[in-house]
Amino acid sequence: MIDFQTDPDRYRHWRLRIDGRVAFLDMAVDPAGGINSGYELKLNSYDLGVDIELADVIQRLRFEHPEVGAVVVGSVLERMFCAGANIGMLASAPHPLKVNFCKFTNETRSAIEDASANSGQRYLAALAGSAAGGGYELALATDHIMLIDDRNAAVSLPEVPLLGVLPGTGGLTRLTDKRHVRRDRADVFCTLEEGVKGDKARQWALVDELVPASSFRDAVSKRAEEFANQSDRPTEATGVALTALVRSIDTDRIAYSLVTVEIDRQEKRATIIVAGPDGLPPIDGEEAVNVGADFWPLRLARELDDAVLHLRVNELELGTILLRSEGDIGHVLAYDMFLVSQGEHWFVREMLLYWARLLRRIDLTSRTIITLVEPNSCFGGFLAEVVLAADRSYMLAGERSDGDGAIANLTLTEANQFAFPMSNGLSRLETRFWGDEEGLMRARAAIGEKLDAEGALAAGLVTDAMDDLDWDDELRITLEERSAFSPDGLTGMEANLRFPGPETMETKIFGRLSAWQNWVFQRPNASGETGALRRYGTGRRPEYDERRV
Amino acid sequence: MIDFQTDPDRYRHWRLRIDGRVAFLDMAVDPAGGINSGYELKLNSYDLGVDIELADVIQRLRFEHPEVGAVVVGSVLERMFCAGANIGMLASAPHPLKVNFCKFTNETRSAIEDASANSGQRYLAALAGSAAGGGYELALATDHIMLIDDRNAAVSLPEVPLLGVLPGTGGLTRLTDKRHVRRDRADVFCTLEEGVKGDKARQWALVDELVPASSFRDAVSKRAEEFANQSDRPTEATGVALTALVRSIDTDRIAYSLVTVEIDRQEKRATIIVAGPDGLPPIDGEEAVNVGADFWPLRLARELDDAVLHLRVNELELGTILLRSEGDIGHVLAYDMFLVSQGEHWFVREMLLYWARLLRRIDLTSRTIITLVEPNSCFGGFLAEVVLAADRSYMLAGERSDGDGAIANLTLTEANQFAFPMSNGLSRLETRFWGDEEGLMRARAAIGEKLDAEGALAAGLVTDAMDDLDWDDELRITLEERSAFSPDGLTGMEANLRFPGPETMETKIFGRLSAWQNWVFQRPNASGETGALRRYGTGRRPEYDERRV
Repeated sequence: MIDFQTDPDRYRHWRLRIDGRVAFLDMAVDPAGGINSGYELKLNSYDLGVDIELADVIQRLRFEHPEVGAVVVGSVLERMFCAGANIGMLASAPHPLKVNFCKFTNETRSAIEDASANSGQRYLAALAGSAAGGGYELALATDHIMLIDDRNAAVSLPEVPLLGVLPGTGGLTRLTDKRHVRRDRADVFCTLEEGVKGDKARQWALVDELVPASSFRDAVSKRAEEFANQSDRPTEATGVALTALVRSIDTDRIAYSLVTVEIDRQEKRATIIVAGPDGLPPIDGEEAVNVGADFWPLRLARELDDAVLHLRVNELELGTILLRSEGDIGHVLAYDMFLVSQGEHWFVREMLLYWARLLRRIDLTSRTIITLVEPNSCFGGFLAEVVLAADRSYMLAGERSDGDGAIANLTLTEANQFAFPMSNGLSRLETRFWGDEEGLMRARAAIGEKLDAEGALAAGLVTDAMDDLDWDDELRITLEERSAFSPDGLTGMEANLRFPGPETMETKIFGRLSAWQNWVFQRPNASGETGALRRYGTGRRPEYDERRV
Repeated sequence: MIDFQTDPDRYRHWRLRIDGRVAFLDMAVDPAGGINSGYELKLNSYDLGVDIELADVIQRLRFEHPEVGAVVVGSVLERMFCAGANIGMLASAPHPLKVNFCKFTNETRSAIEDASANSGQRYLAALAGSAAGGGYELALATDHIMLIDDRNAAVSLPEVPLLGVLPGTGGLTRLTDKRHVRRDRADVFCTLEEGVKGDKARQWALVDELVPASSFRDAVSKRAEEFANQSDRPTEATGVALTALVRSIDTDRIAYSLVTVEIDRQEKRATIIVAGPDGLPPIDGEEAVNVGADFWPLRLARELDDAVLHLRVNELELGTILLRSEGDIGHVLAYDMFLVSQGEHWFVREMLLYWARLLRRIDLTSRTIITLVEPNSCFGGFLAEVVLAADRSYMLAGERSDGDGAIANLTLTEANQFAFPMSNGLSRLETRFWGDEEGLMRARAAIGEKLDAEGALAAGLVTDAMDDLDWDDELRITLEERSAFSPDGLTGMEANLRFPGPETMETKIFGRLSAWQNWVFQRPNASGETGALRRYGTGRRPEYDERRV
């Protein structure tokens, strides 16, 4: 089992030092610390375990260190920033693990960009040595790349010439779309095993600054402080410690404090049930900080995030995720109002941004997502995004015959309009009604309404509504049908239907670049016996099927 | 060898009838007319051969029938419009053929949309019977879908539930991005083997009109005439007959009248040499019509188009295409000026649109494209797009030591600014300098200048310049390096680097949807011994590896 939970005391691969408003995060990969056996993580090469720690530290910097306004990503090694994804790991990993590895590392790179763009925590890459492949892609995810000018340090994306695969963490897209490297130069760069260094790296916009070795450390610190001083994060605030999650994992049930996952292996299905809050929110952001990691939206997000990651990587055969909720929707709406009204507070801002990332993680999860809106569920405001994120949603009309008389309802709020952009840059409402202005207007008109099944259906917010008499049977048929389909066909279909409308760098990375990489990963030219990934380091050249496809 | 040349006398699968301003194009697939053996094209199912005829007739309608303002796509069968791509063909085709089949059919669908949008020739689909899979996707490519209301006729995309693959000709993208079908409804629709009919098809925006059986033919004709009457195409003009291309195909050389392809199998390379015009262009559009199929830009486009298609499908191992030109750049620029200044004339407009489609076909060709600008080459105006379409371009600086004293030059014109949009909706200039306003300004400032190598380099229009002393050696090294790389890695890299910036429905179809489909096609769940494609029609259910990736 791959565990996404860690904490600084357990880090094996990263060193964090905080100096005033600047955090220095140094990569120090333990060669013997691979998450699987069979490869050594030499030269700051990484695997999923290294990235789990990176994701953790990025998250903690945001929540635990309100004072940090800039983060310098560096390396403890002398001449090497980071050698990229470990090739032995890539060569030996089964296809689903390779895909999950790329997806998670891409999400972590996006989280870095999200921190720089929205959280007042700008990332710099300090390349005192070479950055190759995924190492350079990590640098590309930062806001500012500084390269030492020592005649040796180079940046490179040697995947195509060396390994027959693509740079898998957004490198191709970020070269052209973020750094605006001319496409023919990008082509040259991506086919140069040894990469580019010095003036040319600067001229081609592969790095932002070239700094003499003698002044490198000072220049980095100075630049980081400059960035930190532009941050709007508070200098004197207390952080929120991300305490360990309470979790028990059994064969067919994973229980957190607010999230329960029920697993039906026979039906290849996981049901995630999230619990609403116990009561009303605190009065302001500072009070929320005092509640700390137990603040309901934070605890729920962390547990749900962990559950989704766990299912993605450790439960490959569970093809459908049912999302349910239980709780007092009035309390949820009060929390939603709190988040919106206190959104200027650094901690509340982080909460909104975290939920936005978590929801994007759900959008990018290659499982059928079906949300059920039932009596006593509490999908309101930001929790209603879970309904909009689903491939389908079903709502129970009327009361349950054996129930307490409660009626399912669904309530949108202003938060659904702006607070949780998808990867495509649109809200889930805009995405849902892409090109259908009338439908969008109708849904917007329903904001604030306590919608029953009929109302939700009329507003176009749920796929279908069934009464108690039909509910169980119809759901069963729907789910059985779904689980009979090809898992690959569903993955491809969902990845396409979920993102109507415009594309962004992020959707290009997850939708287009990743699809090509997944294709390449499967090809014998990469992963076959004589493919480049398998032949790497053997001294023997790969043998290619020369047909261009 | 698959031949992309055909003409109406040879059609086996389509019937064309022209009635005034409306063309009726009926699908009448000959079951025994498969391009390969081993399958029968029942129920208007199709293979590449059927689509080659469709592409041909679409092209001829534009050039040979200036009077036609609307095209009705129908079927000769009673209850079936089109059953989609033939499953036996898909099951037996090797991966490269499947990919090429999808790419070409997608280009043909795009050509239909291009005719509707830009050529005054609007397409309607008249579904007097069911449209399944690729059949419905063909309808989706038209501007207006009319479905008979006879309680039987349905539209469907049964690929996922039935075959474990994706709708491969843009269906998923067009559902959400063109027809604005809500994503959860699209999800339901794409998993319903039997599809949707009647009112629901209309309500879900899967079709535009639902017409009673009794009035179907009349309603279609009426609607088509209405569209035709809105067309700006001339009613009295004479068309340009697309006469047979003159072509000889030898093992290592393909010769047309203006295009020569030299094949170096050892080096896995094809060199395409295009010839400039003999003299100056005619004085106006009508004169150009009189020149007919021999009009230089038309003849060149048709030959180059055929050469590119031939290399794509019949020469899979030629991984690099070198593009060269020979001729008087002054004459080329005169033709370019002619095209721009006479662009309102229906025939000249078709020429510009054809070149735009041809250039997009080059962008979408999975071969390394390298353009060489040499003394006596003639890359000016619209021909200079070939330089901008390349992954890399090299220019010879100064004269050749054994030459005639000529110096390579490259000249951009206004046509490069607007006339040839890429699939991403931008000009190749805008794409090249995406996000680099300064670079774009510099390139624009060079419009009209006769640029030598130094000038072209300074304007950012070529990748590198070499003098005669280095030219052969440096090129040799570059080409040898390229041909040593993994063909798949290059395909994935080029597909990503060629399309910086925004995305459109077209780039989503070719970049994202196709990449997923290619991935799915390779998976054992689709193409393996027990996969859905292979098990289809055997009465045995597919066996799936249930892991979600």
